[in-house]
Amino acid sequence: MSESVSDFTRGLVFNDRGLVPVIVQQVDTREVLMMAWMNAEAISLTLKTAQATYWSRSRDELWVKGATSGNTQRVIALSHDCDSDALLMVVDQTGAACHTGDRTCFDAVTIHPEVSL
Amino acid sequence: MSESVSDFTRGLVFNDRGLVPVIVQQVDTREVLMMAWMNAEAISLTLKTAQATYWSRSRDELWVKGATSGNTQRVIALSHDCDSDALLMVVDQTGAACHTGDRTCFDAVTIHPEVSL
Repeated sequence: MSESVSDFTRGLVFNDRGLVPVIVQQVDTREVLMMAWMNAEAISLTLKTAQATYWSRSRDELWVKGATSGNTQRVIALSHDCDSDALLMVVDQTGAACHTGDRTCFDAVTIHPEVSL
Repeated sequence: MSESVSDFTRGLVFNDRGLVPVIVQQVDTREVLMMAWMNAEAISLTLKTAQATYWSRSRDELWVKGATSGNTQRVIALSHDCDSDALLMVVDQTGAACHTGDRTCFDAVTIHPEVSL
């Protein structure tokens, strides 16, 4: 099902800071690259430009991913989940997604269950 | 890098409700199944039992995924991101991940950018 940007955004459940979490996934490898946050304006700009644009909670400002590093994300699709309070965005990442230089933000520390089933 | 459960949990940045978001990914297909929330106890139980256990924000209680539906998630690995405020959990999902019966919680509504680059 496809719908207009304003319909899409109007249906979302934003938190008390007006933000919704967005999971970012690489289109071909299906790696989860990072998690970030968007407000309504970031969603609108992302869909208008096809360049991933987030809300920076630390800097309190809109943030075009890769604007300084060149590691941009071309946006292919954006979905919301069943209760409309989380987003999944499929992108094509240029270079590293993580500011550390790692391909994804989840590359550093992994732990495994104490038992295996 | 691998580390102990307590070291892993101690290093995390929980929000003001003591929760951290967790992205749940299917091990073989790499589909993003859902996003949920964990507190320290949910993380500990998940790693002890290898069964995905979350914190339900609507019911304010621990929630073993699939306890009533049978659609459990066997946990394979848990990673945190570069700033330690989001988790990525790789699982093997039995049946549907979504309470609607859809395979993933992101299957219903998808929108595309107005331009393509």
